[in-house]
Amino acid sequence: MEEYYMNTAIELARRGEGQTQPNPLVGAVVVKNGQIVGMGAHLQYGEAHAEVHAINMAGSHAKGADLYVTLEPCSHYGKTPPCAELIMKSGIKRVFIAVEDPNPLVAGKGITMLEAAGIEVKTGLLRQQAEELNKMFLHFMRTGLPYVTLKAAASLDGKTATETGDSKWITSEAARLDAQQYRKSHQSILVGAGTVKADNPSLTCRLPDAVKQPVRVILDTKLTVPETANVLTDGAAPTWIFTAAGSDVRKKDRLTALGIKVFTLETDRIHIPEVLSILAENGIMSVYVEGGASVHGSFVKAGCFDELHFYFAPTLIGGTLAPSLISGEGFQSMKDVPHLQFTQITQIGPDIKLTAIPKDGKDGDDVYRNR
Amino acid sequence: MEEYYMNTAIELARRGEGQTQPNPLVGAVVVKNGQIVGMGAHLQYGEAHAEVHAINMAGSHAKGADLYVTLEPCSHYGKTPPCAELIMKSGIKRVFIAVEDPNPLVAGKGITMLEAAGIEVKTGLLRQQAEELNKMFLHFMRTGLPYVTLKAAASLDGKTATETGDSKWITSEAARLDAQQYRKSHQSILVGAGTVKADNPSLTCRLPDAVKQPVRVILDTKLTVPETANVLTDGAAPTWIFTAAGSDVRKKDRLTALGIKVFTLETDRIHIPEVLSILAENGIMSVYVEGGASVHGSFVKAGCFDELHFYFAPTLIGGTLAPSLISGEGFQSMKDVPHLQFTQITQIGPDIKLTAIPKDGKDGDDVYRNR
Repeated sequence: MEEYYMNTAIELARRGEGQTQPNPLVGAVVVKNGQIVGMGAHLQYGEAHAEVHAINMAGSHAKGADLYVTLEPCSHYGKTPPCAELIMKSGIKRVFIAVEDPNPLVAGKGITMLEAAGIEVKTGLLRQQAEELNKMFLHFMRTGLPYVTLKAAASLDGKTATETGDSKWITSEAARLDAQQYRKSHQSILVGAGTVKADNPSLTCRLPDAVKQPVRVILDTKLTVPETANVLTDGAAPTWIFTAAGSDVRKKDRLTALGIKVFTLETDRIHIPEVLSILAENGIMSVYVEGGASVHGSFVKAGCFDELHFYFAPTLIGGTLAPSLISGEGFQSMKDVPHLQFTQITQIGPDIKLTAIPKDGKDGDDVYRNR
Repeated sequence: MEEYYMNTAIELARRGEGQTQPNPLVGAVVVKNGQIVGMGAHLQYGEAHAEVHAINMAGSHAKGADLYVTLEPCSHYGKTPPCAELIMKSGIKRVFIAVEDPNPLVAGKGITMLEAAGIEVKTGLLRQQAEELNKMFLHFMRTGLPYVTLKAAASLDGKTATETGDSKWITSEAARLDAQQYRKSHQSILVGAGTVKADNPSLTCRLPDAVKQPVRVILDTKLTVPETANVLTDGAAPTWIFTAAGSDVRKKDRLTALGIKVFTLETDRIHIPEVLSILAENGIMSVYVEGGASVHGSFVKAGCFDELHFYFAPTLIGGTLAPSLISGEGFQSMKDVPHLQFTQITQIGPDIKLTAIPKDGKDGDDVYRNR
């Protein structure tokens, strides 16, 4: 039954998807004498935590009850008072926690507080599912860097367009709709200036339940993005541009006047690790990288990705010169290529989506990023 | 129960896989009063047909019984007397046939003979499974051309080697072993001279139960294959070379003296449809095309393929100049690209295998080949 209750807490947490950023998803269940007496989830940033809702619902039943919570209860005064205190006051006698909160403001302090108050604490119940639930948040808290998902679509032979540049549409509407949900679940969408020039995309999430639009991030070494581009003029979401040293200062001023944030690096080239550090400093926990192929190539070569989403359409484009999924420098020897593992294979309409992660561990940081 | 009996016949037929070429796989079951009284399969070319074994096993029980057979019984004297006659003599009163035999020597004559003798005939029971069982034979009989499977292996970004040409090994041993079974199920393996020069492969089937080695077919426009190549010298299987007009006559003579069959086309380039016609004239019903990328490109551009097997390894090679799955001319516009449909997605060890067929019909000939 313990797994059943924790699974209920996870399902509750999931209902807040896309609504709580930058906070994690959290669910909580209060159980007394084998009866569920309280349930709660964190649903909006700044509003009550899952434990508060669940304990409120339980009322006087909380006394002597068990609490199941997907993430370690907080121990600090933030937008709300610490949940650990509320749990102690409520009379709850046992707490099951799926995952410890790596947030330096918590990081075990919640557990310590509970135990000091004589409450029995068990951690690790359904840990894997709870890790998956908040993988971006947990990754960001543990590494200080955003969670990076590379997304691309191609024909079965790995081409993203014909030799003449025709690419409308390789994948189906169903596959393109599937990708929209990741624009919702990531805090930012990143593309190269080439993609802006070629497609003039709006880079917004068109799902009806998209509450908050992701930040649009453009890598533009020489600041060549046209000032009429949708991402600069439509005001549909924040747009941030990364550019290299020496790019046009006046254009930067004009863009800044349009409300665009321009980050100028000190190097001649745009280095991906530096971009990610700056994004992290600016509160971005997740990046959905939509290309083009040379941008993907830079992320891959730098070892800066945590997940891949490749959509393959049931067609063949061929052509020695047709652009392929990942370009740029590439690897010269098979002994240097990254080792991944497939995590999902899904048929979406007529297309297939393959997802993969770096092989060494869920986040792949320690081993993979240092290769 | 009818489907159960036919399914048994199909399972029996499958036991002859790789043993009956150029004959199809056939299974038969005799049923009397709800009891299976006879079972048979065609197991070796030149030996008894499935119906013969099944009726022999049934003995006197065949009188008044039903016969389930996966392919229309033959009506002609070949290596064995016509099965339709035997069925008539045996006293069987109903015959269930999954698929009509398109072989011009049969093509409905078997059914006509049975019906003329007062036997009730029902066709189409488990047709789809029975079609799949003999897809290469049926395709060859219907179109007069071999069944073509294109096989390739690549990294997830569609690269078949690094920019420096390193390709050992992209896919796992498990995936390479999987491919071996198709060397067994096809009558020929086809590669370009470039592959022979780069890898010096033996192109044999290394499975322990491979009875008959497939013919090795090399496309070599200018007859540049080295005379020391394994495929020319190891005597492990027949080797046939296709070359264009004007290639070295003396080298041709030397190769012929080695026992190699050399087909010289009358054109400056090797046209795939002509190669397939010549293979068909020489009794080849199936071709497993293993590359390289430009050979695959020629088959795709000519619309000459019936199935694709792509193996993807969980890695990324990148590199703008790295060779990709299909090269050559390619298609210039998305409106010209072939429409496929995925038929299977299989995880093999760490790799993924995607199989696809042309979208319009199982063989895809009529609609697809004329695009």
